[in-house]
Amino acid sequence: MTTPQPEMPAPALPRTFIRDLAALSGQPVRLRGQILSRRDLGGLQFVTLRDGSGAVQCVGDGLGLDLPLPESSVEILGTVAPHPKRAGEVEVRMQAMHLLAAAAEPTPVELPKLSRVHPDTLLNHRAVTVRGLEARAVLRVQAELLAGFRAALGDMGFTEISTPKIVEAGAEGGANLFTVDYFGEPAYLAQSPQLYKQMMVGAFERVFEVAPVFRGEQHNTSRHLTEYLSLDAELGFIDSEEDVMDVETEVLRVMLARVAERCGPELALLGATLPEVPARIPRIPLLEARALVEREFGHPVGGKDLDPEGERLLGEYVRRELGSDFVFVTQFPQAARPFYTHPAGEVDGVPVTRGFDLLLRGLEITSGGQRIHDPQMLAQSIEAYGLNPDSLRGYSEVFRYGMPPHGGFAIGAERLTALLLGIGNVRMARAFPRDRTRLQP
Amino acid sequence: MTTPQPEMPAPALPRTFIRDLAALSGQPVRLRGQILSRRDLGGLQFVTLRDGSGAVQCVGDGLGLDLPLPESSVEILGTVAPHPKRAGEVEVRMQAMHLLAAAAEPTPVELPKLSRVHPDTLLNHRAVTVRGLEARAVLRVQAELLAGFRAALGDMGFTEISTPKIVEAGAEGGANLFTVDYFGEPAYLAQSPQLYKQMMVGAFERVFEVAPVFRGEQHNTSRHLTEYLSLDAELGFIDSEEDVMDVETEVLRVMLARVAERCGPELALLGATLPEVPARIPRIPLLEARALVEREFGHPVGGKDLDPEGERLLGEYVRRELGSDFVFVTQFPQAARPFYTHPAGEVDGVPVTRGFDLLLRGLEITSGGQRIHDPQMLAQSIEAYGLNPDSLRGYSEVFRYGMPPHGGFAIGAERLTALLLGIGNVRMARAFPRDRTRLQP
Repeated sequence: MTTPQPEMPAPALPRTFIRDLAALSGQPVRLRGQILSRRDLGGLQFVTLRDGSGAVQCVGDGLGLDLPLPESSVEILGTVAPHPKRAGEVEVRMQAMHLLAAAAEPTPVELPKLSRVHPDTLLNHRAVTVRGLEARAVLRVQAELLAGFRAALGDMGFTEISTPKIVEAGAEGGANLFTVDYFGEPAYLAQSPQLYKQMMVGAFERVFEVAPVFRGEQHNTSRHLTEYLSLDAELGFIDSEEDVMDVETEVLRVMLARVAERCGPELALLGATLPEVPARIPRIPLLEARALVEREFGHPVGGKDLDPEGERLLGEYVRRELGSDFVFVTQFPQAARPFYTHPAGEVDGVPVTRGFDLLLRGLEITSGGQRIHDPQMLAQSIEAYGLNPDSLRGYSEVFRYGMPPHGGFAIGAERLTALLLGIGNVRMARAFPRDRTRLQP
Repeated sequence: MTTPQPEMPAPALPRTFIRDLAALSGQPVRLRGQILSRRDLGGLQFVTLRDGSGAVQCVGDGLGLDLPLPESSVEILGTVAPHPKRAGEVEVRMQAMHLLAAAAEPTPVELPKLSRVHPDTLLNHRAVTVRGLEARAVLRVQAELLAGFRAALGDMGFTEISTPKIVEAGAEGGANLFTVDYFGEPAYLAQSPQLYKQMMVGAFERVFEVAPVFRGEQHNTSRHLTEYLSLDAELGFIDSEEDVMDVETEVLRVMLARVAERCGPELALLGATLPEVPARIPRIPLLEARALVEREFGHPVGGKDLDPEGERLLGEYVRRELGSDFVFVTQFPQAARPFYTHPAGEVDGVPVTRGFDLLLRGLEITSGGQRIHDPQMLAQSIEAYGLNPDSLRGYSEVFRYGMPPHGGFAIGAERLTALLLGIGNVRMARAFPRDRTRLQP
């Protein structure tokens, strides 16, 4: 038998990742990465090399390298040296470059100049443009947000769950559901793990899930995706929705602290400043928030909750008067909440609930609340909302068996990422976004 | 305005979780949980209380409690005391019990006696039976496996990604795809993040994803789910598939070490013994494995790879001769691998690849390998496999721009969990399994 030959020569020097170069000034290194950009001044040759950990300038003096096209994968042997112009940074003085995989042609857009390109073009070539430093910085921040979400909840005794995405019925009625052909029968893609995470409270008491959800949004706006990552938590044995807000506050604190600690270069590259999470995020009942916005800004709010302008003004007020970028809007009216939301009596003649929203800088990033746990109250609510009890039978069953008072919340990962980083279009906070018209790449 | 009243009285004593009781002998505690079982002997009353962290026996002496039905949610005030019969364990001497949420009726099966119940019955009432201690122990072990997977890869510089589950075409051809109605156009549920994780190697070099995948499996066996959790990793700048096997070995080591460290009670309850992950898992080329099984056991292997009996015998051999529960089977023939697998020349006239499987105790838990990164080789492979280049255009595009040599692997979370814990039916390693006929609960 013959053994296949490895494609690359066995290296004498172990590979160094770019993020570790700063501590290696004067040392020889072997780098591997892709060429982000190149400049040939004759005697002097410059290459910006990108690997999974960062990017660094590499300089060749009199090497006469045949510089390959940008995005080619190469190995560079060289010596780390202080950067001649940027204090505290390093560059790599090249001794040799080996081509590992040549780019066959120039990229459709120049990756160092993504900010000048139309979003549609960026998204049409997303599989390549996602390599740009800004594009990947957004997703790296998101990865740390997810890790922080899990770490915070794990420390509080929550168990990770995985619930079905193919379901027999939607969580909140039939609107915006995608239909799946399930061996000839119709099924649906889950809009939310809501009902399943509640059921799992009976098993683990405290649960979380990080998973995609699916919404057939007809409108193609900068805030909507048809598929996004939902960060869900649910906990039992609460005294009220106040406990849920306490948990969410701690979760956000850990998430943002983790990003601050691990994503310094990404935040600097994106020019983003993280908000501070106060020890106690202000909590304002919705009806008070409406009155406040009208009183302070002369903005009359229509409808049942807050309109986008009302949310923006409330955010402005809370920032100015209470020094917080975050605010919980509590006691949402029943008419603006789904059937599983726990009622909380009446305020000024309006039936309200234990449901809340969380706003960041005047934009909603999460919904949550205490849920109904009493089986009779639940049956009445399903009827009052005009839902089909049969399609909710698996869900309703658990409430016959002593479900504790419970509640939870959900955060849209892409929306939170975009808001934190000041990105106007939520599509850019997802690797391969899906919207009304986009299924590729 | 009125403020809604909280439903439970404000407690003087903070709540204690059951897992923390062992260190509190002699102390007063306040517990919250659900009643797993109850026994009333007149003067003496016994309750097994379950919370998210564990279960404990609570005893009332002369309290004359009106014991609620099993699964009722209660609060118990009492004092921690050594268990009278089990050395090193504690029980709680009750002073009072408050009902938080009464079960309306007895559960359809008794949760302490799940092992005597038919699997179909268990699954029909999964939302309730998942509360049983054995059922949830399986899922808790799985949660730690996921956490270990992420921790190991995070430490090796991998970035978490989230790739689309609604796709325009399948990763490996059209078989077993679920169709989605995407605003009137057909789309599909992703069978695997394979192509997307490869694309993301261009951005982050090392990536992983933990997410559901969907397979329209026609056969309803104990090993197949139509929706399962796939643990995917992919890394660039490898020298060969050997690097991928090194990474997977380290990942498994961390995963199992984490379960061993954190799931002692769950493993004991399930009677499971974890396998050891050797520093180097044996690697045997497929053709050698086939010859070996025939030579050692007289088992002639048909087809192109190993049949299930061949896998079992190979596992037996490796356990006996090499002292390992794991074995990598390498150099799979091209005919048994998908189009993106990197070829590795011929062995005895058979075109082979850099693709491998990992067997645990004679059963496959993972597939992996080095992938094609050369655009011409990829185009030829797509043609040779008879696939439609148009449906793969987003994928093929990235290879024109210097993709480094790369490879990866995928582990089925439920199958690994079931194998580690000695569970015969993979459905029991998922909270709410989906199969050919099951969409509820």
